[in-house]
Amino acid sequence: MSLDLSADVASLTEQLVNISSVSHDEQQIADAVEAALLSLPHLTVTRRGHTVVARTDLGLGERVVIAGHLDTVPLNANLPARLEEGILHGLGSCDMKGGDAVMLKLARDVTEPLRDLTFIFYEAEEVDSVHNGLRKLTVSDPDLVEADFAILMEPSNAAIEAGCQGTMRVDVRTTGERSHSARSWKGVNAIHLAGPVLARLSDYVAREPEIDGLTYHEGLNATGIRGGVAGNVIPDECVVEVNFRFAPDRSEDDAEAFVRDFFEGYDVTVTDMAAGALPGLDRPAAKAFVDAVGGEPQPKFGWTDVAQFTKLGIPAVNFGPGDPMFAHKQDEHVPIEHIERCERILKDWLTGESA
Amino acid sequence: MSLDLSADVASLTEQLVNISSVSHDEQQIADAVEAALLSLPHLTVTRRGHTVVARTDLGLGERVVIAGHLDTVPLNANLPARLEEGILHGLGSCDMKGGDAVMLKLARDVTEPLRDLTFIFYEAEEVDSVHNGLRKLTVSDPDLVEADFAILMEPSNAAIEAGCQGTMRVDVRTTGERSHSARSWKGVNAIHLAGPVLARLSDYVAREPEIDGLTYHEGLNATGIRGGVAGNVIPDECVVEVNFRFAPDRSEDDAEAFVRDFFEGYDVTVTDMAAGALPGLDRPAAKAFVDAVGGEPQPKFGWTDVAQFTKLGIPAVNFGPGDPMFAHKQDEHVPIEHIERCERILKDWLTGESA
Repeated sequence: MSLDLSADVASLTEQLVNISSVSHDEQQIADAVEAALLSLPHLTVTRRGHTVVARTDLGLGERVVIAGHLDTVPLNANLPARLEEGILHGLGSCDMKGGDAVMLKLARDVTEPLRDLTFIFYEAEEVDSVHNGLRKLTVSDPDLVEADFAILMEPSNAAIEAGCQGTMRVDVRTTGERSHSARSWKGVNAIHLAGPVLARLSDYVAREPEIDGLTYHEGLNATGIRGGVAGNVIPDECVVEVNFRFAPDRSEDDAEAFVRDFFEGYDVTVTDMAAGALPGLDRPAAKAFVDAVGGEPQPKFGWTDVAQFTKLGIPAVNFGPGDPMFAHKQDEHVPIEHIERCERILKDWLTGESA
Repeated sequence: MSLDLSADVASLTEQLVNISSVSHDEQQIADAVEAALLSLPHLTVTRRGHTVVARTDLGLGERVVIAGHLDTVPLNANLPARLEEGILHGLGSCDMKGGDAVMLKLARDVTEPLRDLTFIFYEAEEVDSVHNGLRKLTVSDPDLVEADFAILMEPSNAAIEAGCQGTMRVDVRTTGERSHSARSWKGVNAIHLAGPVLARLSDYVAREPEIDGLTYHEGLNATGIRGGVAGNVIPDECVVEVNFRFAPDRSEDDAEAFVRDFFEGYDVTVTDMAAGALPGLDRPAAKAFVDAVGGEPQPKFGWTDVAQFTKLGIPAVNFGPGDPMFAHKQDEHVPIEHIERCERILKDWLTGESA
């Protein structure tokens, strides 16, 4: 499977969507992206796992990172891509192959940028952060990530979304006692004990704090549940997997304390944690980009890797095609107009020209 | 792995326990049992899958079936066997390799029975009844199952337990709508919707009807739960696997109606059903055996294959070593004294002699 970078950005998005790339299965798409970038003589290409980096080295005073992940959530009967009335449907179309296509077009076309450019196409963003390709890169090759400003092309309606919410995962575990289900009264059913855990989750009321003029929206949800030994055994363990999305005014410690308090009386194990990022729109580099794009910045609800850049002290925003409301949904889709708008705005800003 | 039938019944039980035979993995134990039986010239041996049948053909007026399953529930850190102060511990010791060992000893030693004998060692009793080796045999070789009376060596404290409760399995399904967990309020969480299902199960009060002087005890339990798409997706489906154990005064239709009514408002799918068996102690063949054994018959809570024999019109009882309360428990065990008592009582009854 090879990519045709001379195609328009909409066709290129469709090509990317049609290379299935569920997390942990990104070899094929990374190979295609790497091969396409290697054909561009003005870029230096580095590969780490299924993460591909392409950089200009023009010795300009500033450097901008533009980043996008290559993986998607699992298939949900939503491939191959389907173009209909200016909307491209299909797994990954919104989150975030529209953004990846813009990056590939910029990588090909912007040969004389005002600032040096680093394009990072990375693996495993949709799974536990320990697998995250960008996080790994900051450890293995910190110099490849260095920049004065970062743009993450996560879906944000082709407008700037600032900051991001944090995300943590916990296992909430109930413990009972096994017995034969024909004599269930001799055991203690751990799945039944999980009922009140689910009831608490149903009763949860989300906090919606305002930060730097942007209104965030937290969320606490079971994303998985498992329990059971055999069809005739009273189960002695049930685990509810919970995801807490928290506003960027909470630290990781605050978030953990909230969740432990919420599930008081239950065995809670933290399995994953990624801090959020404050909007940071007061930083000069961010301000300049906001002015260039125009419009009103919005809060970012989803955790994105802007938090990784924030942690490195690099100002970062989300700016990408697609409505994030449709990310991870069966009918995921992206308006072609969004993709084209992002391509145009970034090209203008990176070259200092107006189309 | 070969079995030594000249060993005493306790050692033979230990040999059987140490051949792991979790359901669907009975090849090794069936091979060993088959080889041991083939060494006995007074028996005709037939194998079907991992079910082994051995019969005398002496042309006597009556025939007795003695049956036991070879499989166990999953391992729970309870192998190998361990003998301690007259108690044999280990997976399958109680349910029901003590009974299987008695059968093997009788098969070897009772060469001149009063009634013709059929020993049935069968596979896959601890899983969905569609896999049950005895059920399969009644279809493939009904003549091998024919008899005037059947003794099932399920654990029953070396006393007679009569009848058995029925068992049915259902999936109770909740349906929501997927969304990204960062925008959970845009989806509907199917796992949260399962909370009230678990609450109903917790509130369930068991019926304990008296039938033919025996008191049964029903049970309704989640034996499994599953739900979840990915760690950052609001799940659109959750399935609670429920097992209903019902007293033998309910028909399969009654049982299904009860469960559907209990989970009214939810999507209920029946996945497995096996009717119970009324005690049937008024039948002459059963009565004669009860008199020979002595003591007070008890109700059988667990579903056992006496129901299969009942369906074929063959009077049947449960009579085997081990306390069924410990079946499927981590500390499963069987008193050696039970195993020896069952061997002695059956030998006396089958030969008409007293030791």
